[in-house]
Amino acid sequence: MESTDKSKFPLIVIVGGGFGGLQVAKQLEDKPVEVLMLDKHNYHTFQPLLYQVALGSLESESIAFSLRKNFGGQKNFRFRIAEVSKVNHEKNTIDTTIGEIAYDYLVIATGSTTNFFGNKDVEHYAMPMKSIPEALNLRYLIFQNLEEAVLKKVKEEREPYLTFVLVGAGPTGVELAGAIAEFRNFVLEKDYPELKKDDVKIYLVDFLPRVLGPMSEQASKASQDYLHKLGVELLLNAKVQGYDGHTITFEDGKSIKTKSVIWSAGVMGVIPHGISKDLVERGNRIRTDNICRVIGFDNVFAIGDVAAMITDDTPKGHPGVAQVAIQMGQNVGKNIVHLIKGEATVPFVYNDKGSLATIGRNKAVADLGKIKFQGFFAWLIWIFVHLFSLVGTRNRVIVFINWIGNYINYNGGSRLIIRRFTRGTVKNTTEEVTKYK
Amino acid sequence: MESTDKSKFPLIVIVGGGFGGLQVAKQLEDKPVEVLMLDKHNYHTFQPLLYQVALGSLESESIAFSLRKNFGGQKNFRFRIAEVSKVNHEKNTIDTTIGEIAYDYLVIATGSTTNFFGNKDVEHYAMPMKSIPEALNLRYLIFQNLEEAVLKKVKEEREPYLTFVLVGAGPTGVELAGAIAEFRNFVLEKDYPELKKDDVKIYLVDFLPRVLGPMSEQASKASQDYLHKLGVELLLNAKVQGYDGHTITFEDGKSIKTKSVIWSAGVMGVIPHGISKDLVERGNRIRTDNICRVIGFDNVFAIGDVAAMITDDTPKGHPGVAQVAIQMGQNVGKNIVHLIKGEATVPFVYNDKGSLATIGRNKAVADLGKIKFQGFFAWLIWIFVHLFSLVGTRNRVIVFINWIGNYINYNGGSRLIIRRFTRGTVKNTTEEVTKYK
Repeated sequence: MESTDKSKFPLIVIVGGGFGGLQVAKQLEDKPVEVLMLDKHNYHTFQPLLYQVALGSLESESIAFSLRKNFGGQKNFRFRIAEVSKVNHEKNTIDTTIGEIAYDYLVIATGSTTNFFGNKDVEHYAMPMKSIPEALNLRYLIFQNLEEAVLKKVKEEREPYLTFVLVGAGPTGVELAGAIAEFRNFVLEKDYPELKKDDVKIYLVDFLPRVLGPMSEQASKASQDYLHKLGVELLLNAKVQGYDGHTITFEDGKSIKTKSVIWSAGVMGVIPHGISKDLVERGNRIRTDNICRVIGFDNVFAIGDVAAMITDDTPKGHPGVAQVAIQMGQNVGKNIVHLIKGEATVPFVYNDKGSLATIGRNKAVADLGKIKFQGFFAWLIWIFVHLFSLVGTRNRVIVFINWIGNYINYNGGSRLIIRRFTRGTVKNTTEEVTKYK
Repeated sequence: MESTDKSKFPLIVIVGGGFGGLQVAKQLEDKPVEVLMLDKHNYHTFQPLLYQVALGSLESESIAFSLRKNFGGQKNFRFRIAEVSKVNHEKNTIDTTIGEIAYDYLVIATGSTTNFFGNKDVEHYAMPMKSIPEALNLRYLIFQNLEEAVLKKVKEEREPYLTFVLVGAGPTGVELAGAIAEFRNFVLEKDYPELKKDDVKIYLVDFLPRVLGPMSEQASKASQDYLHKLGVELLLNAKVQGYDGHTITFEDGKSIKTKSVIWSAGVMGVIPHGISKDLVERGNRIRTDNICRVIGFDNVFAIGDVAAMITDDTPKGHPGVAQVAIQMGQNVGKNIVHLIKGEATVPFVYNDKGSLATIGRNKAVADLGKIKFQGFFAWLIWIFVHLFSLVGTRNRVIVFINWIGNYINYNGGSRLIIRRFTRGTVKNTTEEVTKYK
């Protein structure tokens, strides 16, 4: 069993180094506790900018930050690469890929993963985009498809490689659709003199009647206008039936031939075993009380996308956005110290600072409480917020340089296929080198 | 058969988008020819900085440049991702992964790959570093090994994960050894409070009696001093017998237990089929005349690492360095136009501008003709030369920012394990996400 040195300090085990887990660890700096963070990656991913990695306008590593480096100065912090399979709450331990670990307090901050709603074909053939490897795979697929299109002489054979269908018109889908459209409108013909931008079709699909469902009607309408101007076709009130890698079909009978379906239509929480099914809410989230504690457990917390704090004010829990995870993380960090000191805890109250979504190069929509606005100024706010939310000065500077370059000439970026993507596995191009010998 | 539109211009097919191929294509801009470049990657790799990608002090994409983007403005340029398997010179075609392609002139600029000298175990277990995927795999291995070491409680079990053996003390091996040593000396204990720098051992191995064999004795001696000061152990006059993933053995009977053997001990040219064996020189290079034409072929050229221009002045050909490839590329580009116009060609004469190698953070050695110097000033020259040799302003700025950050606090970089590396294949961490469900 892995444990820290015998210490009189309680051990707080944080599962997940995302927005929420990071905040818990930060709050516990210089507090009378030991902190052990586990994550399957050794870095934190700034998910809001993944779509730029997918289009190659940002390097993958500029939106990732080494967890060890981030907490390098925090004396009570330890990190291990590990995945948690089970919580043994009667023993106060977790089963992990590096052995059984005992905890005094456990924070489940495992986030969410893509929800394919049980459709196995879609899960196999469509591309999710919730991690850096997934964004890179998507990038490789997009640019490989363009290279395939270049080789096709017959229009019907070429079209599926130039048709992109994005399912899910939340902020992720909208931002990605706008970025692909801008690539088509301003970069494609320079990089691929063999292709015509009019041959590239981009569809944004949702079963709701409008895009950006969680945002205001005003934001929806403005986004739809911007998307239209960019040349994105909206298919609303449309429910996907299936996708076999060649054709995507809808419940109304419509179908589109495409080699690229990108799925951002839903998320579900990532829950280890050991949590009773009656505690699992819709969207695979763990039910918690108003200090983020898993119902019935006095030393296990759940925060962020994996949690559902059901109260009279929040009958469906909170939205799965970064600000919720960040604020819950801060709340849990403080409350753990209160509990240890025998002090009163502070209930969690979400301070909704608003929503932003960007469409294309210099437009965005913003709902900031009662104030709703759209256009260039909203975009400046979006830039500002995302740049300063990044972890680390170096990352901020690198992203900023990339954005300046992209803004000046549209043509920034690393549209590089580093490894050939094939479904099921990522083929290592080292294998391709050996073919020459 | 793939071909361009019927055009009265001759088609120049360039196989390889490295230093040499790039220059041929550049020379042919606005000339009365069509250019088709083929490469297995859609980007050019700036190999001299690969070792920084391996250590995570540079993002992988900052040393890669999209070939399509680079030549986006060149009207007579086309690009395809393809690998060439065979030259059919009697037909003037090449067999490729995208079909048979006819050429009027062919330039073989395929470069070199790692030479394991026939040792199959070493080839399987040791890590080469001649491409971005290989540098990334090496990075993942290094940092995965450190994570493994953290989990080991017994010193003997931990040591192999903390022992790094670099075989080949040319510039690549020396630069990488210096970088690993600096990581150990200045960053390791901050990121990994569980590890001690004295537990990490770094060996630099060569069968020659001194490091940097191609450089001057003065440069060798200075490098050896710097390496000693950084704590790298030199094993010279040492020939590797085998490596099984756990222990590397030498012909003198010595052995070292290590999980990381990095092989930069030799290169060999990458030659497609169809070139007669009597034209293949030592190091798997194609013999050419003094205008880089393959002996006996009047319309096929070979340049750079894959070529051996054997003359009285150059009885062993030229060194496999970037400047040779660049200058040969320029020469071939110009001579192709001369040949087309029926003008006299210009023989190739290599202008040796000197050699540089860097050791650690701010030391380098420089042989610039008669002038040989070492230390901080040589390092400034190294920085200057490499920064301005990069392709593209954005890449230069990004690399510069990274270097500033690294210089100020040693602690730049993205020591990120994006995908878990296992020998044989690269396991996609997307597979690891599904384990949670």
